[in-house]
Amino acid sequence: MVDPRRDIEVYLDLAESNGLDINYIFETHRNEDYVIGSLELAEATGAEIFHGKNLNFQYGTPTSEGNIFHMGTVELEVLETPGHTLESISLAVRDLSASDDVQMVFTGDVIFAGETGRIDFYGIDRRPQMAGLLYESIFQKILPLGDGVILCPAHGAGSVCGADIREQDYTTVGYEKKTNPQLQFASKDDFVDFKISEELYTPPYFKKMEFYNQNGVPALGMLPHLRPMPVKFLKDWAQRGAQVLDVRKPTSYAGGHIPGSLNIWEEGVAAFAGWFLNYEDPIILVDDQSHGLLEVKLALARLGFDNIHGYLANGFPSWYLHAEHVDKLNLWTVHDLKKHQDDSDLFLLDVRKIDDWKKGYIEGAHHIYLGEIPLKMKEIPHDIPLVVYCDSGYKSTIACSFLKNNGYTHLTSVVGSMTAWEKAGYPVVND
Amino acid sequence: MVDPRRDIEVYLDLAESNGLDINYIFETHRNEDYVIGSLELAEATGAEIFHGKNLNFQYGTPTSEGNIFHMGTVELEVLETPGHTLESISLAVRDLSASDDVQMVFTGDVIFAGETGRIDFYGIDRRPQMAGLLYESIFQKILPLGDGVILCPAHGAGSVCGADIREQDYTTVGYEKKTNPQLQFASKDDFVDFKISEELYTPPYFKKMEFYNQNGVPALGMLPHLRPMPVKFLKDWAQRGAQVLDVRKPTSYAGGHIPGSLNIWEEGVAAFAGWFLNYEDPIILVDDQSHGLLEVKLALARLGFDNIHGYLANGFPSWYLHAEHVDKLNLWTVHDLKKHQDDSDLFLLDVRKIDDWKKGYIEGAHHIYLGEIPLKMKEIPHDIPLVVYCDSGYKSTIACSFLKNNGYTHLTSVVGSMTAWEKAGYPVVND
Amino acid sequence: MVDPRRDIEVYLDLAESNGLDINYIFETHRNEDYVIGSLELAEATGAEIFHGKNLNFQYGTPTSEGNIFHMGTVELEVLETPGHTLESISLAVRDLSASDDVQMVFTGDVIFAGETGRIDFYGIDRRPQMAGLLYESIFQKILPLGDGVILCPAHGAGSVCGADIREQDYTTVGYEKKTNPQLQFASKDDFVDFKISEELYTPPYFKKMEFYNQNGVPALGMLPHLRPMPVKFLKDWAQRGAQVLDVRKPTSYAGGHIPGSLNIWEEGVAAFAGWFLNYEDPIILVDDQSHGLLEVKLALARLGFDNIHGYLANGFPSWYLHAEHVDKLNLWTVHDLKKHQDDSDLFLLDVRKIDDWKKGYIEGAHHIYLGEIPLKMKEIPHDIPLVVYCDSGYKSTIACSFLKNNGYTHLTSVVGSMTAWEKAGYPVVND
Amino acid sequence: MVDPRRDIEVYLDLAESNGLDINYIFETHRNEDYVIGSLELAEATGAEIFHGKNLNFQYGTPTSEGNIFHMGTVELEVLETPGHTLESISLAVRDLSASDDVQMVFTGDVIFAGETGRIDFYGIDRRPQMAGLLYESIFQKILPLGDGVILCPAHGAGSVCGADIREQDYTTVGYEKKTNPQLQFASKDDFVDFKISEELYTPPYFKKMEFYNQNGVPALGMLPHLRPMPVKFLKDWAQRGAQVLDVRKPTSYAGGHIPGSLNIWEEGVAAFAGWFLNYEDPIILVDDQSHGLLEVKLALARLGFDNIHGYLANGFPSWYLHAEHVDKLNLWTVHDLKKHQDDSDLFLLDVRKIDDWKKGYIEGAHHIYLGEIPLKMKEIPHDIPLVVYCDSGYKSTIACSFLKNNGYTHLTSVVGSMTAWEKAGYPVVND
Repeated sequence: MVDPRRDIEVYLDLAESNGLDINYIFETHRNEDYVIGSLELAEATGAEIFHGKNLNFQYGTPTSEGNIFHMGTVELEVLETPGHTLESISLAVRDLSASDDVQMVFTGDVIFAGETGRIDFYGIDRRPQMAGLLYESIFQKILPLGDGVILCPAHGAGSVCGADIREQDYTTVGYEKKTNPQLQFASKDDFVDFKISEELYTPPYFKKMEFYNQNGVPALGMLPHLRPMPVKFLKDWAQRGAQVLDVRKPTSYAGGHIPGSLNIWEEGVAAFAGWFLNYEDPIILVDDQSHGLLEVKLALARLGFDNIHGYLANGFPSWYLHAEHVDKLNLWTVHDLKKHQDDSDLFLLDVRKIDDWKKGYIEGAHHIYLGEIPLKMKEIPHDIPLVVYCDSGYKSTIACSFLKNNGYTHLTSVVGSMTAWEKAGYPVVND
Repeated sequence: MVDPRRDIEVYLDLAESNGLDINYIFETHRNEDYVIGSLELAEATGAEIFHGKNLNFQYGTPTSEGNIFHMGTVELEVLETPGHTLESISLAVRDLSASDDVQMVFTGDVIFAGETGRIDFYGIDRRPQMAGLLYESIFQKILPLGDGVILCPAHGAGSVCGADIREQDYTTVGYEKKTNPQLQFASKDDFVDFKISEELYTPPYFKKMEFYNQNGVPALGMLPHLRPMPVKFLKDWAQRGAQVLDVRKPTSYAGGHIPGSLNIWEEGVAAFAGWFLNYEDPIILVDDQSHGLLEVKLALARLGFDNIHGYLANGFPSWYLHAEHVDKLNLWTVHDLKKHQDDSDLFLLDVRKIDDWKKGYIEGAHHIYLGEIPLKMKEIPHDIPLVVYCDSGYKSTIACSFLKNNGYTHLTSVVGSMTAWEKAGYPVVND
Repeated sequence: MVDPRRDIEVYLDLAESNGLDINYIFETHRNEDYVIGSLELAEATGAEIFHGKNLNFQYGTPTSEGNIFHMGTVELEVLETPGHTLESISLAVRDLSASDDVQMVFTGDVIFAGETGRIDFYGIDRRPQMAGLLYESIFQKILPLGDGVILCPAHGAGSVCGADIREQDYTTVGYEKKTNPQLQFASKDDFVDFKISEELYTPPYFKKMEFYNQNGVPALGMLPHLRPMPVKFLKDWAQRGAQVLDVRKPTSYAGGHIPGSLNIWEEGVAAFAGWFLNYEDPIILVDDQSHGLLEVKLALARLGFDNIHGYLANGFPSWYLHAEHVDKLNLWTVHDLKKHQDDSDLFLLDVRKIDDWKKGYIEGAHHIYLGEIPLKMKEIPHDIPLVVYCDSGYKSTIACSFLKNNGYTHLTSVVGSMTAWEKAGYPVVND
Repeated sequence: MVDPRRDIEVYLDLAESNGLDINYIFETHRNEDYVIGSLELAEATGAEIFHGKNLNFQYGTPTSEGNIFHMGTVELEVLETPGHTLESISLAVRDLSASDDVQMVFTGDVIFAGETGRIDFYGIDRRPQMAGLLYESIFQKILPLGDGVILCPAHGAGSVCGADIREQDYTTVGYEKKTNPQLQFASKDDFVDFKISEELYTPPYFKKMEFYNQNGVPALGMLPHLRPMPVKFLKDWAQRGAQVLDVRKPTSYAGGHIPGSLNIWEEGVAAFAGWFLNYEDPIILVDDQSHGLLEVKLALARLGFDNIHGYLANGFPSWYLHAEHVDKLNLWTVHDLKKHQDDSDLFLLDVRKIDDWKKGYIEGAHHIYLGEIPLKMKEIPHDIPLVVYCDSGYKSTIACSFLKNNGYTHLTSVVGSMTAWEKAGYPVVND
C-alpha cells in the first residue's frame, strides 16, 4: 500500500478478495492534508512501514534511493525525489513477468495530472532551493522512465496540494510531457521562477496533519457513535461553543437555517471543513434527512476531526417545529447578478482559487480564496451589500455562512456562479 | 388478506416466511382512496376475492352476512355493516384454539380509531339514510362483540376517509366506546345529525380509484423505469404540459425551485398528490439527491398515477448550473407572523382540515382546506400579500406552490406553523 | 419513555419529529434480558428516571403506588405490581381530554400477550410467594382496569421472559381475559400451582444484565468500529481464544464454514447470542457479504457485548481462497428424517422450548432446549449419529455448530424442521 | 459517449452534474457481448449516433477515416481500424487547449490492456485476412500516436472479447508496447499466425446481441417489476419450463438448493448467464435475502434478457419450510482434492479459459471451458465421480449445477480451486 487513508477497510477487503497479503506500506512523504492510515493498517495486517530517510518520523523505517522490495514477480524501487518535501520518494514498479523496464510509478506529490508539487512548505527563503530539487526530481528521475509509463500521483482534482490538478485517476509520463503546463517551460530557471511565484493555500488543519503524520496517529479503533440531539440540547451545546455544521445543499440552507451554523454541503466536507472547523469544540451536524451522515463522519475522521458530538434529531425541520428562530440567506441567479452588476454600492467577491480567477472573472469582482477569508476579512467591507460567487454556488454559500457568523449582513450567494454565468453567455474579463 | 394495496410484495414475503398460503382476499368495500391490489394478489397466489353483495363488482365473488371462512383453527365471519357504503362488510375473527368468542374484527371504513366512516358518498339527500345505517352497523354489529375485541380499521392517521383518525395501528371496542367522540352522543338522532353536518373532503382522484376498484385494476407487472432527464428535456416536456413535481422539503423549495413546479415533500406525496396532479400529462420528479424516488414512484402507483416520466438528472442543482431561471418562495417563522399579524393588508390563510381549524386558529385567518384550494381560488384575493400556514409548514408550502402556478404573487409560507405557534405560546382563538 | 433500549436514536428522533420533549423515563422493573438505556437517554435529554421502590438501584428515583406524572392532558399513574420481581410497577395512562378512565396500561413483565411473567428469579422456595403476588397484581390491579384498556407489555414473541408470548405489539385487557391461557384457571391456587411448575430458561447473560441494570450501564457514546480482518489475523485471534461467530444462514454454514466457528443467523443473534458467547474473549463476525453487520453489532450491544473485534475481510470466501480447512455440516430435509426415523442407532434431539415440545414432537426424539445444551451435554451420547431439529432448522443449526465445537461428530441438522414436518403431513406425537 | 450500455442513467447524471450536453454517440463497432444503449441515449438526449461505414446498420450515420467532431476545445478524429470487425473504428482525442497532438484514443475492440481483439467472427477462412487487418490497424494507426497516449479500450478483465484482458480501466500506448504479449512478435506473420491459432469462446447470446446491435434495441423504458413468488407458483412455473437461477454463493448452493436450479453467483451473472440461459423461458431468481436482485436484473437486461419473471418470496428458506425436496452439492477444499488426486476412478475437470489452463493445471485434469460445457458434454463420462475446479470455486459450481441438471451425479466442486491450490503450495503442471 502506498499512502493509505485512515479508514482502511477498503484496502483489507481488496487484499482478501484477491487472496493477497499486505506486507509493505510506503509513505511517499509526510502527508499534510489527511491523516495517514499507516499505523492503523500496519496493526491490522502486520505490514512494515517505510518512508524517505530525510525526516525524523517517530515510527516506521527509513528507505533510500535504489532500495528494492519484492512481491512475487513485481518489484518496487525507491527513487528519492525531493522538492515538495525533502524526504519525498517515488516508487518505480516493474512486473518482471511482463518486461524488465519500469511500467508504473507512484510519484506522491512530485507530479500530478496537469500539475507539479507545491514547494512552499519550508518558507519563502527556501523556495528556490526546493523548486530546483523538484525540477531535478521530475526531469532526471521521473520523465526518463519513458513516455508510456503509467504515473500514479498521490492526489486528484480538488486537492489543496496542487493548484489545478485534473480529474483523472492516473496519467502517463508521455501525456504529462505533452499536456502538463509546468513541463513546458524553456528552462529550469523558468520552471523555478514559476514555482516561486505560485500562490497556494495552506489550510490551518495542515499543522494537525503534519504533527499526526510525523508522530503517529491515534488508532481509529473506535469512531464516535453519532447521537441524535434534541433541539434544546443543540442550543445548549451551541451556546457553550459547539460548532454547528449544516451539510445541506445551498438552496436548502438559503431557505432556512440555524443561526450561527456553518454550511458546507455533504460532499464538500472533505475539502473545506479543515479551513473553518477547529479541533477543540464539539461538532454537531445538521441535515434534512440524515442520509449521508456516515460519509460526513468519515470525511471528518480522515482530517483528524474526532470531536463530532452528534446530529440534530430528525433533521432541520425539528428546529422550526420547536419555534426556534430561522435565518435565511439571499440567493441570486446569474441573471440577477447581471442585472445588478453595475450597482455602485455592491461588493462582488470571487472565492475561487487564484488560478481560476486568473483565467477570467466577472467584471468588478474582488478576489479572496474561500479558505483565506478567515484571515482576510478586514479586506471585506461591512457597510455595503456583499455578493459572493464561485464555480457553482456551493463554495460561495460556505463563504456567506462564515461571513454571516462573523457579523456581516446583506449577503448574497450566486447559484450556478461561473458555470452558469458562462453558460448564459455573459462576459468574462481577465487582466 | 383484507384490502391489499397494489404493490403486494410485502404480503407475499410475509406469507412465505411464515410457511402460509394466501387463499382468500376480502375487500371490506370498494375503496376510493387507493388502488386496490386484489387482482394483482389473486394472480400472484391463486387466492379467491370476496366483497359485499350490494355493489356490482366486475370481478370477485359476493359474500353475505354470516358467511364463514375457515383457515386452520381460525374462522372469519362476514358482518354486513353498511353506512360508509352500501356494500361495506366487516370481518369478525375467532381463533377457536383460544376461545369460541370473537377476538378481533376488521371494520373497513365503518369505524376507525377516534372516528367513524364518512357517509357522504351518495349525495346530500341520502346522508340521513347512510348515517342511520352506519349507526346501526356500529351499535348493533361492532360494539356488541365485546370491549376487549381488537378492532382493525382500514385506515390510520392522515387518511381522507375520516376527519381525524388517530395514529394507532389498531384499537379495541372498549377503548373506542370510551374515547371515540362519535360514540358519545346521547342518541342515534344526535349521531345522525352530527354525521350529516360533517364537512369532509373528496379529492378528485377518488373518481379514478372508484372506477378502478369496481371494474378491476391494470396489473402492476411493469412499473415505469424512471429515467434521469437532462435540463433541456425537462424544459421541453414542461412546455408541452408535463407536471413537474418537486419532492424536496419546504426550506429547499423556498431557497430555489423550477418555475412552475409543484412542491409536495417526499413523504407527503401519498396524501396530497391526488389533489393536484392529473392522470394525463406526464409527471417529472425533482429532488436534490434522488434518494427517495422509488418511494415516490410507489406512492404515486398506489394512487394509480402510472404516468411518471422521469426525474431531473443530478437533481435540482442541475437546473441553476444550466443558468435557468430560479424562483423563490418567502418563508416566515411564527415570530415573523406574530410581528405582522395585525398588518391590515395581509390575507392570512389556514389550509388545515376544518376540524383542526375548529379547535383553534390564528386570529385574523381565513380557512380553506389545502385540497379545496383549486376549487375555491376565487375566495383568495390577488392584490394583497398572502400568508399561508398549516400544522408544520409542509402543507402551506404545497398551497403556495400551487397558488404561484396559478398567478398569485407575494406568497409567504409559515414554517413550523401551528405546531411552532403553540410552542411559542402565541394565542389561539376559536369561535 | 418506558424501558428504553441502549441505542436510543429511535426515541430521540420520534420525540423531535413530534415536537415533544422526553422528560420522564420509567423502568417497570430491573430488566434482565437486555441492557437498559435509561442513563443513556437521561444524559441525552435531561429526563428523570423512575423505578419501583423495592430494589436498591444505584441511579434514578424510587416511585410508589399512586404517584402521578403529568404530561399535557395525559397522566400516568404508578401501580405497584410485584410478582415477576418485587419492585415491578405498571403504569396506567389516562388522556383526560378523551376520558377520565384509564385507557392504556404498561405492564412490564407482569402480563404479556398470551402469557404472564415468570416468577422464578428468587429461587425455588419463594416461587409460591412470587406467584401469589403476581396473581394479585394481575387480578386486582390490571384486569379491573376494564376490558377495553389497551395493554402494552414489555416483551413480544421470542423473548425468554415468557414461555410462549404471542407476536403482537399490544393487546387488551379483555382479549387477554378471553384468550390468555393463564387467566383461565379456576382459582388462585391453580394459577400458583401452574406458575410453580413452569419450566423456564435462564440464559447466562441475565447475570450481566442484572448487574448493569441495577448499577448503571456504561455509556454507548462509542461503539466499536468494526474492522475487516485478514484471514491470517482471524486465525491468530481464534487460536488465542477469540469467539468466531458465523451469522450466515443454515444452508450457507452447512455448505462450508470455519472450523470452530459458532453459527447464529443474523436475525437470531439478539435471541441466542447470550446463551453461547462470553463477555471476555473478542468476538469476530463472519458473513458472506457483510450486509447486515451493523445490525448484528447493535444486537450484541443491546446484550452488553461490547467485545466485538472485527469481521472477516471480504466474507467467508476469503477463507477458502486462502486454502484454509473448511468444515461442513450435514443437512437433512424432513423427508430424509422420515426415512431414517426408525434407525436404531440415531439420537434425535428436539431443541425447541419445552412448551413447543409438549404440544407435539417427532416420535423417538429427546428434548433439550437449545439454550441449555451447554449445561446438559452429558445427556447427549457421543458415539451415535445425532440428528437435531427445531421449528425451522435455524436453531438446530446453532445447536449443531455448538456441539461440533465441543467434540461431537456425525451431526445432522434438519432444515424446515417441525414447520416442514407438519407441512409434509408427517405424524406428531405427544404424551 | 462511446459505446454506451443500455441502462443509461449513469451517463445522463454525469453530463448534468458537469453542465454538459451529450451530442454525439459513437459505436466503435457492432458490439456482440452486450446490448448497446445508443438508441436509448439518443432518445433521452437528442444526440446523433455514428459508426463505421463498413456495416449496414439500421440506425445512425456512417462515419469515415479522418472525420472530425468538435466539442469545445476538444476534437475527436475517426480512425478506421478494421480487424476485429470490418467496420471497427477508433477515436483519437485532442484537447487543443493543452496540445495539438493526440492525447487519448478510444480503441474499441482493436487493442485491450494486455490483449488484442479477436479476429474469428467471419469464419475460419477469413481469419488470416482479419488478423492482417488488425495488425495494420494496431501498428500503423494506434501505436504511431505516441507512447504517452492514454488508450481506452472497450472492455476490461473478464470480457469474452479477449482471452486475457488485464484489470485496468485504461492503459497507454507505450505501456502496451512494452508489456502486451501480442505486440512482442518478431513480425506481422508471427502475429497473424498467433491470432489464427487463438482459441476463443463464442457464447450463444452473441447472436442476439449482434441482431439487436445492428438492427436497433427495444427501448428500456419499462423494466420488469420483479414480483416475489410463492413456493407453489415457482414449482408450477418450473414444471412449465421456467429457468430457476440461484444467485447465492457456492457454499450456500452446496448446502442446499432447489432441484433443477442453475447456480450463478450474483456478481457472475453478467459474465456467465448468457452461456446457460435462453431468451424464451421465464427466468425466476432465488436468493437468500433478496439483497442484490436489482443488480441481477440490470445485469440480465444488459444482455437482453427481459424475460425475468420474479423471485422466490422470502428467499431460499421458503423452499425447505414448505417441505420441498432439497438437493445438495459436494464441495472439496484443495486439501481434499490433493488427497484424492490419484484416485483412478475420478474425472477431474478444469473449466477455466484455455489460456489459464496453458499456464498450468492440476495433474490429471481434463479441460473444457465452462461456457462450452453445453456443447461438449459428451466428452464428460457419466459413470465415475466428477470433480470440477476453476480459479476460485465459483465457476466450477456453475458447471456442477449445469451438469446436475443434465443427468450427472457424483459431482464435486472444489472451493478455492487454483487460487487456494497454489496458496497451499501444491504442484502445478503444464505441457
